[in-house]
Amino acid sequence: MERTDSLDAVFDPASVAIAGVASTQEGLSSPGQRYVDYLLQYGFKGKIYPLHPKGGEFCGLPVYANIKEVPGPVDQLISCIPAARVKELITDCAARGVKAVVLHTAGFSETGREEGRQLEAEVVRLAQAGSMRLVGPNCMGAYHPKAGLSIGYDLPCEGGRMALICQSGSNAIFLIRAAAERGVRFSKVISYGNACDIDESDLMEYFVQDSETDMVAAYIEGVKDGRRFREVIHKLSAVKPVVVLKAGCGTAGQRAAASHTGSLAGSDTAWNAILSQANVIRVYSLNELVDMMVALQFMRAPQGNRVVILGVGGGVSVLATDECSAAGFVVPPLPPEIKQELSRAIASDAGAMLSNPIDFPFWLSGEEKYREILRSLLEWEGIDLFLFLAPLRHTELELATYLPILDYQLNNIIKVAAGSSKPMAVVIDYLATGESWLAASGVQRRCYEAGLPVYHSTASAFKAVARLCRYRRSAQNYAMDG
Amino acid sequence: MERTDSLDAVFDPASVAIAGVASTQEGLSSPGQRYVDYLLQYGFKGKIYPLHPKGGEFCGLPVYANIKEVPGPVDQLISCIPAARVKELITDCAARGVKAVVLHTAGFSETGREEGRQLEAEVVRLAQAGSMRLVGPNCMGAYHPKAGLSIGYDLPCEGGRMALICQSGSNAIFLIRAAAERGVRFSKVISYGNACDIDESDLMEYFVQDSETDMVAAYIEGVKDGRRFREVIHKLSAVKPVVVLKAGCGTAGQRAAASHTGSLAGSDTAWNAILSQANVIRVYSLNELVDMMVALQFMRAPQGNRVVILGVGGGVSVLATDECSAAGFVVPPLPPEIKQELSRAIASDAGAMLSNPIDFPFWLSGEEKYREILRSLLEWEGIDLFLFLAPLRHTELELATYLPILDYQLNNIIKVAAGSSKPMAVVIDYLATGESWLAASGVQRRCYEAGLPVYHSTASAFKAVARLCRYRRSAQNYAMDG
Repeated sequence: MERTDSLDAVFDPASVAIAGVASTQEGLSSPGQRYVDYLLQYGFKGKIYPLHPKGGEFCGLPVYANIKEVPGPVDQLISCIPAARVKELITDCAARGVKAVVLHTAGFSETGREEGRQLEAEVVRLAQAGSMRLVGPNCMGAYHPKAGLSIGYDLPCEGGRMALICQSGSNAIFLIRAAAERGVRFSKVISYGNACDIDESDLMEYFVQDSETDMVAAYIEGVKDGRRFREVIHKLSAVKPVVVLKAGCGTAGQRAAASHTGSLAGSDTAWNAILSQANVIRVYSLNELVDMMVALQFMRAPQGNRVVILGVGGGVSVLATDECSAAGFVVPPLPPEIKQELSRAIASDAGAMLSNPIDFPFWLSGEEKYREILRSLLEWEGIDLFLFLAPLRHTELELATYLPILDYQLNNIIKVAAGSSKPMAVVIDYLATGESWLAASGVQRRCYEAGLPVYHSTASAFKAVARLCRYRRSAQNYAMDG
Repeated sequence: MERTDSLDAVFDPASVAIAGVASTQEGLSSPGQRYVDYLLQYGFKGKIYPLHPKGGEFCGLPVYANIKEVPGPVDQLISCIPAARVKELITDCAARGVKAVVLHTAGFSETGREEGRQLEAEVVRLAQAGSMRLVGPNCMGAYHPKAGLSIGYDLPCEGGRMALICQSGSNAIFLIRAAAERGVRFSKVISYGNACDIDESDLMEYFVQDSETDMVAAYIEGVKDGRRFREVIHKLSAVKPVVVLKAGCGTAGQRAAASHTGSLAGSDTAWNAILSQANVIRVYSLNELVDMMVALQFMRAPQGNRVVILGVGGGVSVLATDECSAAGFVVPPLPPEIKQELSRAIASDAGAMLSNPIDFPFWLSGEEKYREILRSLLEWEGIDLFLFLAPLRHTELELATYLPILDYQLNNIIKVAAGSSKPMAVVIDYLATGESWLAASGVQRRCYEAGLPVYHSTASAFKAVARLCRYRRSAQNYAMDG
């Protein structure tokens, strides 16, 4: 049996049992109840078997006292019972022919106590004896929207082409939500916690083949088998772009990772070597990971480092130019022809910046004229990337005036972008207020629906684009060498 | 006459005339109309004189055809008329004894055209001949909440102790709003555009003496008289902390600054030398500037670099630890006594991190016990700074469960903080969704009302704290040397 075949029961089970579907004192839902509810809400087509010693009914489904009483075969079991009762559960699952167990249950090696480590080792031994695969413990399991599996509410129901391997459950949910806001959709996501059996290498191996997945993002706290990891990540990166956030760097971070998922974090230097040799994109924060997913899903890498910046607001444009330069890009002056075209299009240049960056009162020139100017900018041989700055720092009152202007701009940019092969990016630098965010969210959606990548600052946009360029260049060299 | 005395008409006018109170075709308010409305909305106590050739009435005030017809003395005039008519206006203002003119009007040296430069020079000459001071052109003017002056809607009506000198108007408004969300309140803010007369040095000189101001933040695109600037910023920094965001670095940024406010940006190396010699805190983005204002208003500098991190969520805590280390801080392991105290307080350590960072199910232990633990952490000699992580990445549904927990924590942290001299910081790392932001906004307000500084990421918190520490150390050495 190929080890990765057995991951089918993790991502595509025909039936799921949930152990620990308990009612809580406070009337809030328990983790077990939530897993049942996710399957129902996300449209899981297979059988769902809630388990609890007290029996009864939950969400219209019969609750079975234990796994032995379930009437049909069970591909996957999700354990939400206390650690002390997991050994017995695993034995029962093996007897019933369960193929994979997701151990949401915590209290194993991550406690740092010897009992926890021993318990985890015994659970692994029992599972292996029963030919079962384990996810976790101390994890959330699989989100596979196409199959109706989820690990939280309000995650997109539609699938995409990005896979995410994430050791931390809460970070997995953050990443899915934050990336979804910017249009990224996922093929499969897995939160795998302590990685006592299925680990990052098994998962990467799985995604080498997975036909639903074009790109792979990963949040990893530690790796136990460094040699295998190095082999597998090379294999994966050779066929699909891979971006990794390695957490638990430095002494304190390593101790934190050990305490969180029982991971041996490894030295930062070793990680750098492994990742750069495999042409894996390395990022350093959750937000950078989201930015990189956006770049991978929505952007072609620019052919060079020359940028034209179309801004709204002078101060914003000046700072954007600084951030562009700091990231190694250049903002060349406009050629005289385009400058003249801009000048001719408006009556007065008061308050306008007809250079590069451009801050241009386009609404004075008419839509057709505006699109002509945009086309001139995009077709200009002197640039490789078009950046549109859409700051949203307005109050409700001001948004009434500003949003129609932004709409006008975006409509025309989207129209022109459709006929151009030049890479584009949009920066929506919004103020942290409710109104500004709501407006930003709408603009963001319009952008990603038109296939445009959105970033939340110029600095983060250029960081992601620079990484994309480096990655594509290396991938090309790699392909030529190979 | 001391040059700074004449800034009283800029910040504390007894009467303000607004030229160009035009009605617009679209029914939206014109800039001139908005300035009148700001004075009314923010409770300006002096005389308000709207001007427009057509006369009539606006907001219940008579509109005068021009400055000559205004019945009383005018301290400040705000010009919202086209550049071509500004010379005549200045001559009329001089004849009427106006003390200061705010030139909201653009279309001068920032256009890069010779006519614009000449016009600006002539306007300056006319103003000087009439003993008038000029703000701008191409600016927003003064926000002085105590005096009822504003440059936008929805800025705080109450004043504070932070001054802001900001060459860009839109950045000034962003900075006021973003900082206000985190509790920063301003004594006086000025957007001064092309700085044809009143420049950053005049303003810094003014704030040396200003009794309403304890700290000064500045966004500067360029300086014309480098020697004077160097002298004045030394003088200011010797008595009040100063933080500067220098925009227009690099060739492209300098060209952008020239196009935006006609500024000569100066080399980055020269700026570094000037600012570091004067012990001025240098930052590199608007968000870093806001973070630094928060640190200056709300934080004592920690005595050392040892941090205890109390988190919610394992993955969040691991990353926070990495970011802390990257910024040069250390996260020492908890001493055995405190570890035992934590262990004793909960029934099971499953899912908890009883190390440092700490992810602790405090709600199981009772409020009094929780406060005892917090006090032990704060009193522990091994740390210099207490960091509380409050990630808000939740959907509306989850917030119903999570917010009461966060409230419980914050209530107790605020109570314990009141009795401790150890510096504290709160990181609210919120997801960019409406619900999460609304919740974050409320939590944020509770924190700053209790005097706690709030940051939006661990990395940005530590960057600001590191700068605060460096600044305080240098200020101490400076005081000892002097």
